[in-house]
Amino acid sequence: MYGHRGGILWFTGLSGAGKSTLACELADLLGQQGCRAYVLDGDKLRGGLNADLGFSPAARTENIRRVGEVAALFADAGTIAISACISPYRADRERVRAAHRAVFHEVYINASLAVCEARDPKGLYRRARAGEIPQFTGISAPYEPPPSPELEIRTGEWPLARCLGELATYVQQRFLLSRAA
Amino acid sequence: MYGHRGGILWFTGLSGAGKSTLACELADLLGQQGCRAYVLDGDKLRGGLNADLGFSPAARTENIRRVGEVAALFADAGTIAISACISPYRADRERVRAAHRAVFHEVYINASLAVCEARDPKGLYRRARAGEIPQFTGISAPYEPPPSPELEIRTGEWPLARCLGELATYVQQRFLLSRAA
Repeated sequence: MYGHRGGILWFTGLSGAGKSTLACELADLLGQQGCRAYVLDGDKLRGGLNADLGFSPAARTENIRRVGEVAALFADAGTIAISACISPYRADRERVRAAHRAVFHEVYINASLAVCEARDPKGLYRRARAGEIPQFTGISAPYEPPPSPELEIRTGEWPLARCLGELATYVQQRFLLSRAA
Repeated sequence: MYGHRGGILWFTGLSGAGKSTLACELADLLGQQGCRAYVLDGDKLRGGLNADLGFSPAARTENIRRVGEVAALFADAGTIAISACISPYRADRERVRAAHRAVFHEVYINASLAVCEARDPKGLYRRARAGEIPQFTGISAPYEPPPSPELEIRTGEWPLARCLGELATYVQQRFLLSRAA
């Protein structure tokens, strides 16, 4: 109907790795190409749907479960849902994958902790190091990188244009329906 | 972008009043007209996003809160989200309205309990009367009708075509952007 499939691009990575930035840039680009894309931003969802959840492992698990379910609804609606949540636990991501296998694409937004901490766009790492934020991923809570993501974007090494280009190519190959078909 | 606003059509009414049927028919009709519409079906969401919730007043409140948040995301994405949940408590619906005032439209899908019980499409009323389903809305749990919904659809009195026509007209008046503008 819209020339492309619905699906889930599940971004995962450390705070500051560039998940939200790339998600928004990609959604803009896809919109310009006439695709339907929508960003599910973890931080924003914590102000709404997931406002009742904290940052304990159990709360993070439930947070990810809900974002997965919402992303699946958007995919069902024919939209390319771009989820931008840290989603630090492998098991939580695998649970989303298992529940929505046909539409789930894991994208590792990979920048090292050193790079993310040097960027520190919101000053969160500084605060976490000072002990002001408990259970901060990468500092006082674990981040479990995906062993075999569908796509890896090395934001610590590649310029933005290449990151965006690799994402756009992936979408083109996996989501766009052939006009000839 | 799509010739119409995003927003929430929040259907409320008894089980068997016709919420899901009308929601799906309306979404099909709007789709044929080139609009983006998506049905958030209460029963289906209870199999996914809200699978952890029961039917106590507190669980129903949380159920409605989450559906409201998801509907608001769809509205933000430019979609006409059609929520089809019993949503029996006035306070719960008013909370969704207050949180998303600019996009919330309450639609009372009104059929009397007698009509709904006579239809009993899923045999639920029979089972509820037999005491097999606790806290069943209209039988052993309250339904609080909306005092001033934006729209009322009398499915107990009107044929389907009129119900659908009134809904389509409402959407045309409130959601469609003037081509001349």
